[in-house]
Amino acid sequence: MEVRDPVYGTVQYDESEQHVIGHEWVQRLRDIRQIGFSFLPFPGATHSRFAHSLGVMDLAGRAFDQAYAQWGFTDLSQRARFRSLVRLAALCHDIGHAPFSHCTEFSMPPLGELGITWYESQEGARRASHEDYTIAILERTSLGEVVARHFPFTARHVAALVCKDVEVEDDFFLDGGLDHRWLLSQIVSSELDVDRLDYLVRDALHTGTAYGRVDVDWLIGNLSTHVADGHVCLALEGRAVYAFDHFLLARHHMFLQVYFHHTSVAYEEHLRRYAMDPESGWSLSADLNVYRLTDDAALLQHLKEVRHPMAERVANRKPYVRVLERHGSEDASDVSQEVEFLDGQGIDVIQATSTGRLSRYQGQQSARQQGDQIYVFERLDGFPVEAVKTLNEASEVFSRYADDRCIGRIYVDREDVVRARRLLGLPCDEA
Amino acid sequence: MEVRDPVYGTVQYDESEQHVIGHEWVQRLRDIRQIGFSFLPFPGATHSRFAHSLGVMDLAGRAFDQAYAQWGFTDLSQRARFRSLVRLAALCHDIGHAPFSHCTEFSMPPLGELGITWYESQEGARRASHEDYTIAILERTSLGEVVARHFPFTARHVAALVCKDVEVEDDFFLDGGLDHRWLLSQIVSSELDVDRLDYLVRDALHTGTAYGRVDVDWLIGNLSTHVADGHVCLALEGRAVYAFDHFLLARHHMFLQVYFHHTSVAYEEHLRRYAMDPESGWSLSADLNVYRLTDDAALLQHLKEVRHPMAERVANRKPYVRVLERHGSEDASDVSQEVEFLDGQGIDVIQATSTGRLSRYQGQQSARQQGDQIYVFERLDGFPVEAVKTLNEASEVFSRYADDRCIGRIYVDREDVVRARRLLGLPCDEA
Amino acid sequence: MEVRDPVYGTVQYDESEQHVIGHEWVQRLRDIRQIGFSFLPFPGATHSRFAHSLGVMDLAGRAFDQAYAQWGFTDLSQRARFRSLVRLAALCHDIGHAPFSHCTEFSMPPLGELGITWYESQEGARRASHEDYTIAILERTSLGEVVARHFPFTARHVAALVCKDVEVEDDFFLDGGLDHRWLLSQIVSSELDVDRLDYLVRDALHTGTAYGRVDVDWLIGNLSTHVADGHVCLALEGRAVYAFDHFLLARHHMFLQVYFHHTSVAYEEHLRRYAMDPESGWSLSADLNVYRLTDDAALLQHLKEVRHPMAERVANRKPYVRVLERHGSEDASDVSQEVEFLDGQGIDVIQATSTGRLSRYQGQQSARQQGDQIYVFERLDGFPVEAVKTLNEASEVFSRYADDRCIGRIYVDREDVVRARRLLGLPCDEA
Amino acid sequence: MEVRDPVYGTVQYDESEQHVIGHEWVQRLRDIRQIGFSFLPFPGATHSRFAHSLGVMDLAGRAFDQAYAQWGFTDLSQRARFRSLVRLAALCHDIGHAPFSHCTEFSMPPLGELGITWYESQEGARRASHEDYTIAILERTSLGEVVARHFPFTARHVAALVCKDVEVEDDFFLDGGLDHRWLLSQIVSSELDVDRLDYLVRDALHTGTAYGRVDVDWLIGNLSTHVADGHVCLALEGRAVYAFDHFLLARHHMFLQVYFHHTSVAYEEHLRRYAMDPESGWSLSADLNVYRLTDDAALLQHLKEVRHPMAERVANRKPYVRVLERHGSEDASDVSQEVEFLDGQGIDVIQATSTGRLSRYQGQQSARQQGDQIYVFERLDGFPVEAVKTLNEASEVFSRYADDRCIGRIYVDREDVVRARRLLGLPCDEA
Repeated sequence: MEVRDPVYGTVQYDESEQHVIGHEWVQRLRDIRQIGFSFLPFPGATHSRFAHSLGVMDLAGRAFDQAYAQWGFTDLSQRARFRSLVRLAALCHDIGHAPFSHCTEFSMPPLGELGITWYESQEGARRASHEDYTIAILERTSLGEVVARHFPFTARHVAALVCKDVEVEDDFFLDGGLDHRWLLSQIVSSELDVDRLDYLVRDALHTGTAYGRVDVDWLIGNLSTHVADGHVCLALEGRAVYAFDHFLLARHHMFLQVYFHHTSVAYEEHLRRYAMDPESGWSLSADLNVYRLTDDAALLQHLKEVRHPMAERVANRKPYVRVLERHGSEDASDVSQEVEFLDGQGIDVIQATSTGRLSRYQGQQSARQQGDQIYVFERLDGFPVEAVKTLNEASEVFSRYADDRCIGRIYVDREDVVRARRLLGLPCDEA
Repeated sequence: MEVRDPVYGTVQYDESEQHVIGHEWVQRLRDIRQIGFSFLPFPGATHSRFAHSLGVMDLAGRAFDQAYAQWGFTDLSQRARFRSLVRLAALCHDIGHAPFSHCTEFSMPPLGELGITWYESQEGARRASHEDYTIAILERTSLGEVVARHFPFTARHVAALVCKDVEVEDDFFLDGGLDHRWLLSQIVSSELDVDRLDYLVRDALHTGTAYGRVDVDWLIGNLSTHVADGHVCLALEGRAVYAFDHFLLARHHMFLQVYFHHTSVAYEEHLRRYAMDPESGWSLSADLNVYRLTDDAALLQHLKEVRHPMAERVANRKPYVRVLERHGSEDASDVSQEVEFLDGQGIDVIQATSTGRLSRYQGQQSARQQGDQIYVFERLDGFPVEAVKTLNEASEVFSRYADDRCIGRIYVDREDVVRARRLLGLPCDEA
Repeated sequence: MEVRDPVYGTVQYDESEQHVIGHEWVQRLRDIRQIGFSFLPFPGATHSRFAHSLGVMDLAGRAFDQAYAQWGFTDLSQRARFRSLVRLAALCHDIGHAPFSHCTEFSMPPLGELGITWYESQEGARRASHEDYTIAILERTSLGEVVARHFPFTARHVAALVCKDVEVEDDFFLDGGLDHRWLLSQIVSSELDVDRLDYLVRDALHTGTAYGRVDVDWLIGNLSTHVADGHVCLALEGRAVYAFDHFLLARHHMFLQVYFHHTSVAYEEHLRRYAMDPESGWSLSADLNVYRLTDDAALLQHLKEVRHPMAERVANRKPYVRVLERHGSEDASDVSQEVEFLDGQGIDVIQATSTGRLSRYQGQQSARQQGDQIYVFERLDGFPVEAVKTLNEASEVFSRYADDRCIGRIYVDREDVVRARRLLGLPCDEA
Repeated sequence: MEVRDPVYGTVQYDESEQHVIGHEWVQRLRDIRQIGFSFLPFPGATHSRFAHSLGVMDLAGRAFDQAYAQWGFTDLSQRARFRSLVRLAALCHDIGHAPFSHCTEFSMPPLGELGITWYESQEGARRASHEDYTIAILERTSLGEVVARHFPFTARHVAALVCKDVEVEDDFFLDGGLDHRWLLSQIVSSELDVDRLDYLVRDALHTGTAYGRVDVDWLIGNLSTHVADGHVCLALEGRAVYAFDHFLLARHHMFLQVYFHHTSVAYEEHLRRYAMDPESGWSLSADLNVYRLTDDAALLQHLKEVRHPMAERVANRKPYVRVLERHGSEDASDVSQEVEFLDGQGIDVIQATSTGRLSRYQGQQSARQQGDQIYVFERLDGFPVEAVKTLNEASEVFSRYADDRCIGRIYVDREDVVRARRLLGLPCDEA
């Protein structure tokens, strides 16, 4: 079985996987656009998280095959089991997503309401994230039964690759005395995961821009394994470190040039304002039956129906527009003073800050267990490894781009633009 | 001003055009998918008629520039006027489209209800088409005022390029004693129009298939002009005739392999059945204010809410599946006998016939005024034209593919498949 | 091990294959352009038969994997052996090529001089072809030893897949009582071979044209097996027949628009004239040590050094130019009468005829053993095969394009163009 | 007139340009590969400087049109003249190249021998560069006459855009009291020139890698003009600065991953060693008639014929292979100590250092006249410019990548590899 895909030509899957692909929670991703409001400034970017998820599944299999190419499992079925699991985790990693990506996450309920029991430690009071929803869906819906019926593992094993906090009590990840969970997780979610590889190339294609065209072939083709303290970890041949640098920088520029486009950000802020307004009474439900029906179309329909000025901005496509934009460090891009000033002058403003960070894993990594790293092998073709480093040690890109790159913006109603600019002392056409 | 585009990289437009692009009737096309239900079998095919329309506008300008490259207009502003008009007609040619493309056209109201006065002859009793809606929107909505305010022509001139039946009473299309309407119309709608050039390449990209990758550069790069009886017509250099053949065949294969995919056809048939059911009471409104809100999302929402078995098939993505499929001539692909038989056995079937015709213009052309043709120049580079033929004379592809290629199919509920196949004497897995 | 490739991104190979790739006969293909003189009208078409051969090797492995996906060999090593062989035959299928492709083949020596002993029947008197050279190189050079040293088969088995006339005396191709030679040969050389799939896509890429963009994924993804009379044959799922039609037509248009470009044909004719001139004394050597050094650069160097008017035309890039060109059937494209006439008027002319045939296998096939066919399975997804046809029966494209499409041309020195056109009664600029 | 191109689809040119394209010095570029020995590790990279030069010409016209879109020249013919000149300079900028790119430049004669009189100041004693050859060819061959005959300017004006040291005595570059030479030069040769834009995309395509896929559309689409001290300079809209960063980094990674591939570097070093050997007697001729015949094929032919061990390495494709490779700063990548040691042990080594610099213009720029800069306009769409910066001020990429990235390598004969590694204390397979 296969589907045609704009990025890879064809994505193949087997009959077991078809049961999951056809499940309503995966099908729901057809109605959640991959990059939210980006289809407004980039008309081609109507692609869905469904197409992305199939692509990630495909890459996960390729990454697995390459990383484990020289590995001897205790038997062939063990290899097949792990491969199948990593593909399924890749397929399901996004099922918990709210409509329009991340901009409504703040209105998610406290984690405790999702009723997850699989996490190692419970911090029920903190706000849930889309990842928590993914885990909840795996634990509490019929998707779990479908997995159990068609695969030699359970939804909990799938969840374990999506989120590190999921505790697995059996020895599923052990083979030949080694623990494979780290590597399998790293394929799905890490500094070098196939999620990013897919979305960069896919988003570049659909937006018609160039930044995300990373060297997927070379990165995947140079994956390998490294054993650290009984854990099997992902490793990368040293000759692909520049490709890795290019990939992180490509992602960085994709954020700055595409994902942070001023128009999409404006819509996100309108939506956020609507959702934060206590008057609106809107929030994302902890009831999964309700949440399942909350997709892009449903939310847009809702915004059309309520009578709320911020909702109407989105529904009628009349967003506020920029009067000021600053790029640089957090300080250099700060526009708070101007916001306050305009506010004082009676102009309704939206302030938005977009923060481009080279990598969200970087900081976390050091805080986590030290072993959960991606390793780099230094060697010449055909000779044994001379040195093993961590990716952070092998690449200079982290230090070169250690600081965040922020974009601070002030938006106002189109009718207030000239007045606001004048108040800010900015040149106007009419001057 | 520009937008990025997956096909062309960038599409530029000017401030006048921006007013039309931003108009609600053009923005509505964002919510009508370019190829209807095809996003179900082809997950990448979520692209909208909005992106397509921008692309067609871009190609229309390029085609104009090339065709008229050597032409001497009476003054530069005349050239600019015609160019602007052909781009605008290209941009607006699809605004009358119903949701999910053509499969709901049969439930459009009688033409008379649309209140169009621009047509040469009135046949108000016939059923309206999406093209009629386009004309009605140009004639009767605020879009017309926007055009009049920002351009040196009216919406009626735009309409005249979209539909040949629109009568234009002034001498707008005359320049230097010649009538340019034919050529300008041919760019927008003809055997070699930029509508087709755009959708083939765009649909190929988004579906991840190869068939539609036609040689747009060569076809546009070899356009020229031919004057026949006071009319300026589109002409093609003889060296591009094979490219033209390839283009028509590419389109033919795109229909057979992509547009007629059995899954999309199943959804279309469910929708058609719903709409044809007198019980459903559903039809496309002649009231443009209502029609404007009828987009893909609204129709899907409606199908989710009504309690109708055919609507539920679409809404819940549980379409009937094929039990029989025949390809060939109209006769060879006929499945009526089997339909009748299964019907008699109490199985609910859907019968669908998809007809692949090399070109819909071919037959029409001969019936129309003879002059409205695309011409072909035979010559060697650098030498004068030796012979002028019509495209129909110059290309053999029409005679090679004179007959239709039909696909006849029978669909039944998934639960009836085995029984139906057994009744039809077809092999079953369980046998 | 891998190389990067413009078409596939990456082509992988193993250490055994590396020994063959590094061999001087395969390396020689770096110096033979894939499409001869086409780099003159198409500046990007400088690509070599070396890159093509690596691509064909890659596709051969993919085609094998797909065709045999459901097949149970007697053991895994048998599968590996066949797979390795078909890749190697694909890699080596072009090693016998003369410089500038086919246009010097007529000056090859009689077959007998190549000293081949592997052919079933000897017809030593007929002229050798590039395929015969491939067989001779496999039989008589150190390449054979390299194969024998690194693979579980011999160069003769490789030769058997390149050419049907090679007799194999052992039972290498038998497994489980069935003979696999037909299928393995069909992957390398047949109506649907991977040689064509690669060159169409590759040549399209490098020439910057669209015609050759065939649906490689769908064609390969629908390969299967059919057993006929103890022979395993290639089969294609019925749902890929339109893709096959598109592929043959794509190839046809690639010939008409690219390979038969008037400029490349002019150079080929000059080279042919030089080689046919008894005065020139030039011919392709039967001595493989000499032949190995005969590549594009060496031939061009030779043409620069000899003092021969036809050689100088090529060396100095001053080809004759067209004065007449006719397209159509053999008769309709015939220019002999004009050739004779111009000749009589003392103008030196070159006459060239290029014949576009939909498929060279079609006619041959019927004359050969009837079983050696590609088969087509008619069925719906998930159900057993309903009918088996041959590809010739399943596709209509052969009958639609049964006739040849010829291009007849007359070329003369640039200085004679106007006079020649005038004599032929053709319009001239100066008129 | 047009040629098809793998990157742009089609490149158009006019009849005047055809005379230059057809000239033997431009045609010579067909025989000089764009990236030297890179076709050995990257089989698809056989593309020539000829195809590149046509592409640069095409982009130069697009860059001109965009930069000057809002500019009012004194008359239309002035615009046409400048546009034509910048295209021609782009077309001719590489005609002085020696075979295999830069690695033989050190064996060029002293500048004085080229007989150039157009330079402002004469430093005849310094070694000539390929750029000097370009100027010499424009000044001293029949190409100059061809330019003079077909264009409203002379070869000296062309030369002035290729090299800043060329003095122009007339007022050709003045229009409306402003000097346009800086901007026109910057299109051809600067931090943001179309030479780089073309080669990155083209080399990426042919090598099958991703790094060079820069956002050409956005960069060119955001060009503009800035007047500084009577000079018209290139300007870039601020919204394209991240695209510029991405472009410089793309180039940087293209160097590190592609242009500095260890295999190409080995061949370059063998060739360099041959050329530097006083025994070899080989050098690049100052006689342009001789130099014209010195192309890739001629040099390879020469290397095949001489009996010199280094020449044979290239001719027979038996390069030395790496035993050591270090990446980092100049110091960190230094391998001199190991070179000395192996030397002392009687092993013949080649030491090679490849230095990746973010931009070669950066340092120069500061030393030059301050005005010759590319400027950046900060503003929001539709509003006047708020601030003008230089590109160096506007982009952070220069400071982030201020240091060079070096690769130090030691190569030895394949037979010495294991011994050399052992001497260096590196792990060996046999250990």
